[in-house]
Amino acid sequence: MSSSTVITNIATLITNDPSLGDGSPLGAIRDAAVVIDGDRVAWTGESSKAPATDNRVDAGGRAVLPGFVDSHSHLVFAGDRTEEFNARMSGRPYHAGGIRTTVAATRAASDAELEANLARHLAEALRQGTTTLETKSGYGLTTADEARAVRLAARHTDEVTYLGAHIVAPEHADDPAGYVDLVTGEMLDACAPYARWIDVFCEEGAFDGDQARAVLTAGRKKGLHPRIHANQLSHGPGVQLAVEVDAASADHCTHLTDADVDALAGSRTVATLLPGAEFSTRAAWPDARRLLDAGVTVALSTDCNPGSSYTSSVPFCIALAVRDMGMTPDEAVWAATAGGAAALSRADIGRLTPGAYADLTLLDAPSHVHLAYRPGVPLVAGVWRRGVRAV
Amino acid sequence: MSSSTVITNIATLITNDPSLGDGSPLGAIRDAAVVIDGDRVAWTGESSKAPATDNRVDAGGRAVLPGFVDSHSHLVFAGDRTEEFNARMSGRPYHAGGIRTTVAATRAASDAELEANLARHLAEALRQGTTTLETKSGYGLTTADEARAVRLAARHTDEVTYLGAHIVAPEHADDPAGYVDLVTGEMLDACAPYARWIDVFCEEGAFDGDQARAVLTAGRKKGLHPRIHANQLSHGPGVQLAVEVDAASADHCTHLTDADVDALAGSRTVATLLPGAEFSTRAAWPDARRLLDAGVTVALSTDCNPGSSYTSSVPFCIALAVRDMGMTPDEAVWAATAGGAAALSRADIGRLTPGAYADLTLLDAPSHVHLAYRPGVPLVAGVWRRGVRAV
Ligand SMILES: [Zn+2]
Ligand SMILES: [Zn+2]
Repeated sequence: MSSSTVITNIATLITNDPSLGDGSPLGAIRDAAVVIDGDRVAWTGESSKAPATDNRVDAGGRAVLPGFVDSHSHLVFAGDRTEEFNARMSGRPYHAGGIRTTVAATRAASDAELEANLARHLAEALRQGTTTLETKSGYGLTTADEARAVRLAARHTDEVTYLGAHIVAPEHADDPAGYVDLVTGEMLDACAPYARWIDVFCEEGAFDGDQARAVLTAGRKKGLHPRIHANQLSHGPGVQLAVEVDAASADHCTHLTDADVDALAGSRTVATLLPGAEFSTRAAWPDARRLLDAGVTVALSTDCNPGSSYTSSVPFCIALAVRDMGMTPDEAVWAATAGGAAALSRADIGRLTPGAYADLTLLDAPSHVHLAYRPGVPLVAGVWRRGVRAV
Repeated sequence: MSSSTVITNIATLITNDPSLGDGSPLGAIRDAAVVIDGDRVAWTGESSKAPATDNRVDAGGRAVLPGFVDSHSHLVFAGDRTEEFNARMSGRPYHAGGIRTTVAATRAASDAELEANLARHLAEALRQGTTTLETKSGYGLTTADEARAVRLAARHTDEVTYLGAHIVAPEHADDPAGYVDLVTGEMLDACAPYARWIDVFCEEGAFDGDQARAVLTAGRKKGLHPRIHANQLSHGPGVQLAVEVDAASADHCTHLTDADVDALAGSRTVATLLPGAEFSTRAAWPDARRLLDAGVTVALSTDCNPGSSYTSSVPFCIALAVRDMGMTPDEAVWAATAGGAAALSRADIGRLTPGAYADLTLLDAPSHVHLAYRPGVPLVAGVWRRGVRAV
């Protein structure tokens, strides 16, 4: 028998059900309670009306929100790139391999090292309130190394993405077409059993629109769902392709034409913004306001990776989105919870409504607004995942 | 008898003694150890040469640095200003009292409420690696309320600043000269026994250069040392006045003329930069690079307060300084440790050298660079204050 727990005395409960509470997209209920039964939410409402349960937790007048859904990370890797970051930020030249540094370290690492590194970062993210974390391959770039990456990732998350098409593998530098054949052939066959998603880095210097379409189309034939790194560094065909193939998400969306915005607005594709990347590379911010005003669904994620965005902090991304991308605190919190769930085509997470998974974050603050109002402060005081207190 | 402890297996030890280790201002020693004897540092050097001690702690190949010295905060207050922040960031009009809201809430609070709020924020800062925290009065603005603020603050920190001259008290709105008389007379007499520092907000709408000089001069006669809120919102006389009165620090320094920079460079006055304020008000950043290139000593602090910068995170300020203010990671870490100590005219903190207080922060990372490389991630894994493990 599963046991039931009520969390009472919640100053602000974010449900993401607009029919509840204040009627905003956040469905915020004041003086609220939430009942957990087994791994699911069983009830939400005013604290005074909460039903009796086996266990009782007093939230102490603090805020509870859905656990963050971080729909974009790259955490199957070894090594770090401290010196490259330090040189970039100190204005010193640096002549090493960028992403190829991480590919070499990842290939050289043992399974145990890779898995320990992944587990360490997942635990770090969980302590910061992230209860669902998508992660990708993409630092292996051989059939064996990519298959190893998705296999190890699948031990730790249901949201595994095959990104053999991250860059052209060094061995295929002179034969990109041959590499696309590999990514859509033998490598795909080896990775598909462990992955839910297929992704491609569609950018100058990586894969063009036709190559990206070939990758996503091949993945779909193997039962994988498409998502795409699109329009991060320049205008390009990525966003249009995402809409064409009905991708769950177009990620980055930093450089968009009006036609790109219109295409997203007329589609089911979520625009996932990754401000950690712009922060750590001193790049211009994506314009969340423009997307929201056009009616696009926006998600916020970390892009956690050792090269361009080595943050695992969704609260940090929320604070940046509010300060620099034109999002209100309400919109940013929605984007990091319900938005992330939409970017993963999930209805069972990112909201606190009966039947959803009991993935909850308790803040050491009376409202969700404090995630932006108190930037950098570790505000996560408790985390429940699948109904079990994890932090 | 005091007991001794050695912390070994430190991948990077930041001493801030340029005669040690790599010879940089950080005096970084690789594969290092530090010995604590009682409340002081007794020895630093290579791990293999560490002397025998009573206790031994393995840092696990991580980094140790001096505890952060946060030389500028406003933590004797009640209430918060969530709604004002939310309205500002959401583009909604907001017609409440700004700082006057905090003054009213602070006056209405009991001693116990004020002290509990202060203690809560101090504990929060300690968990983030801050081992010395200056804090100010300035939300009382009557003799009794200002005296209460410094008296309560003095129970928790040696670095107490009397800031009766924060704004003109509401009751004196039509008589600013009378308020300056109060601040430099009866209120000063009541506050001086509890404070080390006197401060004034020299800015249009607050106190002009002559008023600020009168405040600082009166404080000095009572044995208080001057520091000053200078040039935050506009060019003004604050920085020049700071140098004129040999203030320990000119804080904010966001709007500087070449003459201001020259004056600082030719003085002992530290420029304390407070990027949390620019972050939370969407203001232009102070130019740390310009100050450093001119030879000015720069400190970094949080300005933690409920109105314009409600962060207690020094690591967050380091990440901002590197991203947006032209500081290298090394410079930012120095500014948040040795720089903060200089801004408080302290030689016994902000460095890990024999005789200094054993205030240390252990990071969950192999180097201090990760404070900027991993923005928003709570990296503080341990804190010793006065030789005692506190976190
Ligand atoms: Zn990515
Ligand atoms: Zn201040």
